[in-house]
Amino acid sequence: MRPSRRQPDQMRAISFERNVSKHAEGSCLVKFGDTHVLCTASLEERVPPWMRNSGKGWVTAEYGMLPRATGDRMRREASAGKQGGRTLEIQRLIGRSLRAVCNLQKLGENQITVDCDVIQADGGTRTASITGGFVALMDCLLWMQERGMVRASDVAREHVAAISCGLYNGVAVADLDYDEDSSAQADANFVMTGAGGIVEIQGTAEGDPFSEEQFGELFSLARNSIAELVRLQKEALER
Amino acid sequence: MRPSRRQPDQMRAISFERNVSKHAEGSCLVKFGDTHVLCTASLEERVPPWMRNSGKGWVTAEYGMLPRATGDRMRREASAGKQGGRTLEIQRLIGRSLRAVCNLQKLGENQITVDCDVIQADGGTRTASITGGFVALMDCLLWMQERGMVRASDVAREHVAAISCGLYNGVAVADLDYDEDSSAQADANFVMTGAGGIVEIQGTAEGDPFSEEQFGELFSLARNSIAELVRLQKEALER
Amino acid sequence: MRPSRRQPDQMRAISFERNVSKHAEGSCLVKFGDTHVLCTASLEERVPPWMRNSGKGWVTAEYGMLPRATGDRMRREASAGKQGGRTLEIQRLIGRSLRAVCNLQKLGENQITVDCDVIQADGGTRTASITGGFVALMDCLLWMQERGMVRASDVAREHVAAISCGLYNGVAVADLDYDEDSSAQADANFVMTGAGGIVEIQGTAEGDPFSEEQFGELFSLARNSIAELVRLQKEALER
Amino acid sequence: MRPSRRQPDQMRAISFERNVSKHAEGSCLVKFGDTHVLCTASLEERVPPWMRNSGKGWVTAEYGMLPRATGDRMRREASAGKQGGRTLEIQRLIGRSLRAVCNLQKLGENQITVDCDVIQADGGTRTASITGGFVALMDCLLWMQERGMVRASDVAREHVAAISCGLYNGVAVADLDYDEDSSAQADANFVMTGAGGIVEIQGTAEGDPFSEEQFGELFSLARNSIAELVRLQKEALER
Amino acid sequence: MRPSRRQPDQMRAISFERNVSKHAEGSCLVKFGDTHVLCTASLEERVPPWMRNSGKGWVTAEYGMLPRATGDRMRREASAGKQGGRTLEIQRLIGRSLRAVCNLQKLGENQITVDCDVIQADGGTRTASITGGFVALMDCLLWMQERGMVRASDVAREHVAAISCGLYNGVAVADLDYDEDSSAQADANFVMTGAGGIVEIQGTAEGDPFSEEQFGELFSLARNSIAELVRLQKEALER
Amino acid sequence: MRPSRRQPDQMRAISFERNVSKHAEGSCLVKFGDTHVLCTASLEERVPPWMRNSGKGWVTAEYGMLPRATGDRMRREASAGKQGGRTLEIQRLIGRSLRAVCNLQKLGENQITVDCDVIQADGGTRTASITGGFVALMDCLLWMQERGMVRASDVAREHVAAISCGLYNGVAVADLDYDEDSSAQADANFVMTGAGGIVEIQGTAEGDPFSEEQFGELFSLARNSIAELVRLQKEALER
Repeated sequence: MRPSRRQPDQMRAISFERNVSKHAEGSCLVKFGDTHVLCTASLEERVPPWMRNSGKGWVTAEYGMLPRATGDRMRREASAGKQGGRTLEIQRLIGRSLRAVCNLQKLGENQITVDCDVIQADGGTRTASITGGFVALMDCLLWMQERGMVRASDVAREHVAAISCGLYNGVAVADLDYDEDSSAQADANFVMTGAGGIVEIQGTAEGDPFSEEQFGELFSLARNSIAELVRLQKEALER
Repeated sequence: MRPSRRQPDQMRAISFERNVSKHAEGSCLVKFGDTHVLCTASLEERVPPWMRNSGKGWVTAEYGMLPRATGDRMRREASAGKQGGRTLEIQRLIGRSLRAVCNLQKLGENQITVDCDVIQADGGTRTASITGGFVALMDCLLWMQERGMVRASDVAREHVAAISCGLYNGVAVADLDYDEDSSAQADANFVMTGAGGIVEIQGTAEGDPFSEEQFGELFSLARNSIAELVRLQKEALER
Repeated sequence: MRPSRRQPDQMRAISFERNVSKHAEGSCLVKFGDTHVLCTASLEERVPPWMRNSGKGWVTAEYGMLPRATGDRMRREASAGKQGGRTLEIQRLIGRSLRAVCNLQKLGENQITVDCDVIQADGGTRTASITGGFVALMDCLLWMQERGMVRASDVAREHVAAISCGLYNGVAVADLDYDEDSSAQADANFVMTGAGGIVEIQGTAEGDPFSEEQFGELFSLARNSIAELVRLQKEALER
Repeated sequence: MRPSRRQPDQMRAISFERNVSKHAEGSCLVKFGDTHVLCTASLEERVPPWMRNSGKGWVTAEYGMLPRATGDRMRREASAGKQGGRTLEIQRLIGRSLRAVCNLQKLGENQITVDCDVIQADGGTRTASITGGFVALMDCLLWMQERGMVRASDVAREHVAAISCGLYNGVAVADLDYDEDSSAQADANFVMTGAGGIVEIQGTAEGDPFSEEQFGELFSLARNSIAELVRLQKEALER
Repeated sequence: MRPSRRQPDQMRAISFERNVSKHAEGSCLVKFGDTHVLCTASLEERVPPWMRNSGKGWVTAEYGMLPRATGDRMRREASAGKQGGRTLEIQRLIGRSLRAVCNLQKLGENQITVDCDVIQADGGTRTASITGGFVALMDCLLWMQERGMVRASDVAREHVAAISCGLYNGVAVADLDYDEDSSAQADANFVMTGAGGIVEIQGTAEGDPFSEEQFGELFSLARNSIAELVRLQKEALER
Repeated sequence: MRPSRRQPDQMRAISFERNVSKHAEGSCLVKFGDTHVLCTASLEERVPPWMRNSGKGWVTAEYGMLPRATGDRMRREASAGKQGGRTLEIQRLIGRSLRAVCNLQKLGENQITVDCDVIQADGGTRTASITGGFVALMDCLLWMQERGMVRASDVAREHVAAISCGLYNGVAVADLDYDEDSSAQADANFVMTGAGGIVEIQGTAEGDPFSEEQFGELFSLARNSIAELVRLQKEALER
């Protein structure tokens, strides 16, 4: 039995709340159980210097954690004077994942920055950030569509969502929470599209190496979980 | 008439929501209209090196703003590599204000860090942070009281709250929102205790200098507003 | 009796020495007793990027302390790799205070940077910096006037000066030195114009909160002290 | 046909040269074609503070690139004042990969730091670093074994090696060089042990998402390539 | 003729003023013409961690320049976030020069930090800093001697002073000011002891390389200048 | 007898290997015994902002050390977040030395950056860097000459090379290795041209001051050593 008493393939309660920011063009408060991430999408009508006059836009992401989002208070990165390696790694992943489903040509010379700030953490913050970040991005594209700037479905050609799966006591389980993650033998993050295409896979043995068969089980769980997440994203975006 | 159409002495809708963090010993989501600040109070059973073996505790504060809390996205301080002057100034003010009503001797050798993170900004974030930060601090002291560590009312001897008042078109008005703040001739922040004692006053002429009489009007508005804020804090802490 | 044996309303010996820099367009070595601040005003015929083509100029200030200006040697901020919160807070205050009496339109697209470097500290460095910084600024404007660039009195419409007052043993006293400041119950800095207008007020309870009546006494001392400081500034500027 | 004119499953010329450092306890200059990485393993007879008195050792890695290892000169990270996100991500990966095959208990309270410095880059620097870093680590463990400090095969229970595979014109190819990497549709790095266990998988779609079937082909190439790399590592370690 | 109209071997007006700091154990305001450097020597009764329990003391130096010490205002290093290469180079030189004449064993486990802050610059700030820094150091040692902590002449076994010499229009000249330095073909700094021993020589061709004969002329000028500086130091220390 | 058992005037085995980088326009691996420095010269067809439209080019240098180039592993400067004072001092010296023999006018508006990265250190890294850096620079100029961009001998008018000499047991010896350097009483670096002109001299007493006569002996050794180094550079450049 998993510590969370969930079935191996059972995700936590998932919810997406749009329109949570007075200022941002797009926003979404995503919850994977006790992991809560506030995602905002900010539009700027200019692109980074190295993209000027390319006719293309840019989508990028930043990630942060409030100091007491975690069990023990962590030092504020702004006060430490730099973003840690983990933070940089995660925000690069979020950015790549979102860009993988975007047609930057259709965005025009605009930049959308998706900020994913973890209000409360209980494992799976990077997968929640990608999954909620996509909703915030779509929310922003719909805002632009209303103003005749783009057609949202031209820019975001597909949905993208992410899930972490792991091996707990030798069993493949979906959507690890913090306690499960701490004691898992393996942890893999999958980022996939609504059509089942692979955007990114990151699998790591925490202790002993794991086998190809076990990796296959994780993959299979991820495929189903992501299909469900995409269904929930669509529901949220139709509201 | 003020841009907000409020009466000169009318504050925005004020609310305090406790217990908003799974992890923090004390927490409070404070709202002054559209200004929302998440305040968490984190207990550590140790003090800074320069206070060791003094028998006294320490209360400190940190302040931050999510990048898109504001109308235009601001650069993330963690990415810029340092906290700006305004951030440092505000967090020093919050810390001083909270310590002004605390008996650090009664806290024992414990440190409480109050993090005030602005989720959404619409003016008055420093006064909301002090006012909500006090509720988070009390929430933490009550948590400690339940565990027999301190008597909350011994440590926090009084309430403390803060309000900004300003001169708008020559009229003294309470609780400026962002639009009002931007066009005010003067802006003053008052930090006062439940018993009406002065903890901190910061008044600034934005354009022309202002007169002692005008300052007196701001002071008078502040006194009444803070009395009301303290009443609302007490209500929130009794729930 | 105050530690300094001065009367409650008695300031320290105040002096302004102009023309102390071979290079700077304006300069003033200001002394408030043993607090000595070297103020230089540097003219640059350009403004910050965000002000270009506005037709307006800019006045800004920076503040620093030599490492052994103080009783114990303090770490050099350049070596620590950043300016501390106190430094940033003070230099923002000096800049605001000087701009409050300036007509930036009349300055044309020029920037004046007032550097206030504390050569020796004995309390009241920020008020000495504002008071002496104004003399350096005027010295620079007179330099510009001689060259037909501006009319000094058009740019600086009024004098500005500052004083710290505090409560010592329950008595309001003016111009605290370091020892008095360390044991004062309250400390308030007042920045006012020659005409008695309020530019900035910062009052802080060091221990227990203080009353409105006490604040009124501090205010009254400040008003008189600043009038005297402005008289001394004028004397120095006529020499 | 691949730009490099190699067969899809053909790696570049691979070589390991041990004993290339006068000072380091272990060292290896690894070459994957024109990608050259100098790996040194430095022994310190102490562990990081958070591991003291645990009876366990630690293996960690750092990664760097000489400024002109690349086609265009890149800014020196020491001069930029920080390690970039890519650098931090890679050095975390190298460290995790090496620790995955180590028994830290058997290492005793010693720390081994494996520095992987890219002398010349032509794609695949992270996989070359892991593969050559393992040889440097073993070289260091054999140095310790000679001095009776550990038994090398107790600490490093297995070999570990890494390869990048990618999709080029729809075909799965092994060991991408820089030109191939720049135009690949997908890029996946595999870290596996001598016994075929999975240590880490990182797959990324560069353009369109890719399919599970394609991922399977990459995996299959990687399995064979790593078996060959491990054979070459063994040869190098027997010399 | 030199721009300064001095004779080739003529130094600028040199003066040493001791006792210029209320707080520092030793201090000296040194002037080489228009180059003014405030030197303070701060005693701490502890040594850097790497020297603890060695029974020896430490003498170190730091160097800084006020932003408008120079003809054009320079960016404040504290605000830039780091000390520049030139600053680090100069403060290392000052420290080495002072230590070269000190017996650190006789100092006991005390550290003296000599801060050299350039109030006004007109060339030769590093040589003025060494020459004045030595007087501040001696001033501090005499302070310690009065309190029975050391015998000053045991710690500082010899005087040390420094001068810059250069080639101007092919002629060797002593004590270059800023204008001369800017147009000199060669610039050499000599640090020598009262007994004529060489502590440090740094000679640099600014344009074309110079000859050994020319170097010999610079050396000869330096020898005489330093003898004169040492005489003036002694005078100042006897007052 | 010196620790290295070399004759006083005997340098270590010196070698220059050109063409060691696939990417750099010029490169040279220089060895002074066990001191190995990889020098690359990178051409950029633009100059720093402050030189634009001057019609002149720029030659600059950077210096670094691999963490385990030394006997004990040193902290990576990129990870420490800044280049140390020693590094900055050395790279400024290398840049000055190379520019001293260059006609920047003849270079046109191009910048050449010479990176000197110490692969293995055994004393004399700065002199090896200058001597090998010159070969890399020439290698780059010959590359440019082949493409009709410059005439190499117009830009680099002379050779430049460097050697360290020191006093060991009172005897002047050439080309100190690390052990000798650690116990030398004096250490002097000489940078001279092929024609015997002086570019830079840096002499430092490590313990007691040394005499002019001793300095003369060091100078004499340096003159001969540099003549030999220039001969070897020429050989390498003719290959």
